[in-house]
Amino acid sequence: MPVTIQVHRGGFQVPGFRVAAARSGMRYKDRLDCALMVSDVPASAAGIFTRNRFCAAPVMVCREHLAASAGTARAVLVNAGIANACTGDEGLERARRSARAVARRLGVDPARVLVASTGVIGPQIREELLEAVLPDLAEHLAPEGWEDAARAIMTTDTVPKTAWAKGILGGKEVTVGGIAKGSGMIAPDMATMLAFVATDAAVSPDVLQALLKEVSDRTFNRITVDGDTSTNDTVLVLASGAAGNPSIQDPHGPDAHDFLNLLEAVCADLARQIVRDGEGATKFVTVRVRGARTRDRAARVARTVANSPLVKTALFGQDANWGRVVAAAGRAGVDFAPDRVSLRFGDVTVFENGRPLSGPELEEKASAVLRPKEVEIALDLGEGEEEDTYYTCDFSYDYVKINADYRS
Amino acid sequence: MPVTIQVHRGGFQVPGFRVAAARSGMRYKDRLDCALMVSDVPASAAGIFTRNRFCAAPVMVCREHLAASAGTARAVLVNAGIANACTGDEGLERARRSARAVARRLGVDPARVLVASTGVIGPQIREELLEAVLPDLAEHLAPEGWEDAARAIMTTDTVPKTAWAKGILGGKEVTVGGIAKGSGMIAPDMATMLAFVATDAAVSPDVLQALLKEVSDRTFNRITVDGDTSTNDTVLVLASGAAGNPSIQDPHGPDAHDFLNLLEAVCADLARQIVRDGEGATKFVTVRVRGARTRDRAARVARTVANSPLVKTALFGQDANWGRVVAAAGRAGVDFAPDRVSLRFGDVTVFENGRPLSGPELEEKASAVLRPKEVEIALDLGEGEEEDTYYTCDFSYDYVKINADYRS
Repeated sequence: MPVTIQVHRGGFQVPGFRVAAARSGMRYKDRLDCALMVSDVPASAAGIFTRNRFCAAPVMVCREHLAASAGTARAVLVNAGIANACTGDEGLERARRSARAVARRLGVDPARVLVASTGVIGPQIREELLEAVLPDLAEHLAPEGWEDAARAIMTTDTVPKTAWAKGILGGKEVTVGGIAKGSGMIAPDMATMLAFVATDAAVSPDVLQALLKEVSDRTFNRITVDGDTSTNDTVLVLASGAAGNPSIQDPHGPDAHDFLNLLEAVCADLARQIVRDGEGATKFVTVRVRGARTRDRAARVARTVANSPLVKTALFGQDANWGRVVAAAGRAGVDFAPDRVSLRFGDVTVFENGRPLSGPELEEKASAVLRPKEVEIALDLGEGEEEDTYYTCDFSYDYVKINADYRS
Repeated sequence: MPVTIQVHRGGFQVPGFRVAAARSGMRYKDRLDCALMVSDVPASAAGIFTRNRFCAAPVMVCREHLAASAGTARAVLVNAGIANACTGDEGLERARRSARAVARRLGVDPARVLVASTGVIGPQIREELLEAVLPDLAEHLAPEGWEDAARAIMTTDTVPKTAWAKGILGGKEVTVGGIAKGSGMIAPDMATMLAFVATDAAVSPDVLQALLKEVSDRTFNRITVDGDTSTNDTVLVLASGAAGNPSIQDPHGPDAHDFLNLLEAVCADLARQIVRDGEGATKFVTVRVRGARTRDRAARVARTVANSPLVKTALFGQDANWGRVVAAAGRAGVDFAPDRVSLRFGDVTVFENGRPLSGPELEEKASAVLRPKEVEIALDLGEGEEEDTYYTCDFSYDYVKINADYRS
């Protein structure tokens, strides 16, 4: 991501979009628990969804609607508290019914309404409660509604997550702004990752989908908290075209490139906020694997290290335990040559050519590097030029506490 | 494993073998820390080793020697405290040197001496300390030395692990007896899985290797504590032939079948003892996946559930959290049909045809099932007749505590 893109947090507006949040009372009482995002015109729409076999009803509805509307959308309805997952045909029908209710209220095609849910798995949503607050939501739609929406979609998150950036496309200023809620570290039944991004750039649906896929693979698909995935994970991007730039039709053109950088900057920031808010987490950890023959090999090693419970507990203990890192790398299913591998904690090299470096000062220096809240582990496989990066957090007492006590 | 095989723990003898343990003082002081196992005659020998890319020097030496001796061995030397892993050419030379010293002492071919190490990764072993206790080891070799040896190979284990069983092969009584030390739950740098099994059965080297592979895949390769693997994992089986049964040459004959059952009974018991002794573990968990189209599909789902941190913390909390189990199953990379899946905690079905069963009593019953120290989770994929089972334990506060504090 080019350093020239400045990403901001807090309130933002995206021309062409209005947003509102409300209290349906479906599960949470006395707090915002649902949000409606509306585009003034049919926007290009793209989505990335969970690959879990147990995929929630709203995910199925999004897939159906994006296909039926040829990648366009007018509105997204989100609720927090009940996930509508493992709910069978009835859950699917309830999700469809809530989309139809939004369509009726806004006077738009139901296929142009997308839905997302997060919360406990198993119970049916009560879409009649969503329908009951629709008039309220529609009445309060406003360009500055994103922060409320970010708050409304929280479950176990401790802070709302927003990010936005501006850039120039085809001579016009464009905005990319998004909200997200956290994943993992708690439970898949409460910790779906949801992200909703809006832009006023004009982008064709196909290009938007292609660019979102590319960006997700480098951002949302590169964060991991415990390797567990949710039934409801959803990332949606809507592009209204209100900026008036010449519509981006070529995924390989210069405008597509610039837009991709903007989108990536915003998504990367949201993804990092999700990891940082992992409950129980005390550290934000970057796992970088360099010198790989292919990017896929780098990714497999980085993912295995980032998910290793032994590495994550060592990081909680601020222990520069190189043995756990290399042992995790060694079981990633990548046939690298051990005697070409080196490892750094921060800027301290602790392992080179398959052998640990020694010295009492070295151990001290390496442990010092692990004291700050943000730490980096860098492995070099010494076999090529490719690299990949994962972001993760540590495993703390609180991780066990929160997850063992969660439903009790 | 047929129920007719009675597996015992505690002391045992295997005709044709003598064993001794000693204190080398290499890392642990004032305790047994090395062991020598000797067969009176060249025994058939088979081995299964870690697949970690960072494979320790003694593992390389075992592979070399088994190849050079055509699958025969006279002795196994084991030390606990230093793993001789990530030690480069020097480590390899030290491992070879210790094998040669045993060969000289016993007057046998060096290729018929196997070595194994467990302990911290990185430092060189001090093979001169092993050489120094060799006279003592050789002098104290005795048929009843197995329990001392089981104690000598412990690192973070809290109890020594032995198992033995007897059976009839070709009209002769045969014994299979083994010792093991624990894996995982602590650190790969201290928690290698080692197992050494001896039998007086007569079995050809090739058949012994084939049967050990089959047995390991159902026992040692079906236990998991945190998914992390060690640089030193080693399982060795030596068969002396002292029982005088007709040598087993056909891996598919009835004697091979009977021997396999005996070997599996002993290895399964040792494997379970390893999981039970996982430090921090409060539960022994059986994850059974039935109704799969292939055994591999069942194994992949079982392994993913058994390694899920969210499932393991829920089990520590005695929470019948079916959502975490099905969400873990759903990311195993197996394309089963979610609406045919059912799930039991013990004998309480909580999920059927892709939907949770409900009722307040049901939840209570399911949680009650998780209170004992031994619990079972059974998933049925509803797509076929194949099944597989993994054994694991829960993630407790102590897991984090022990692993975060381990080197500090």
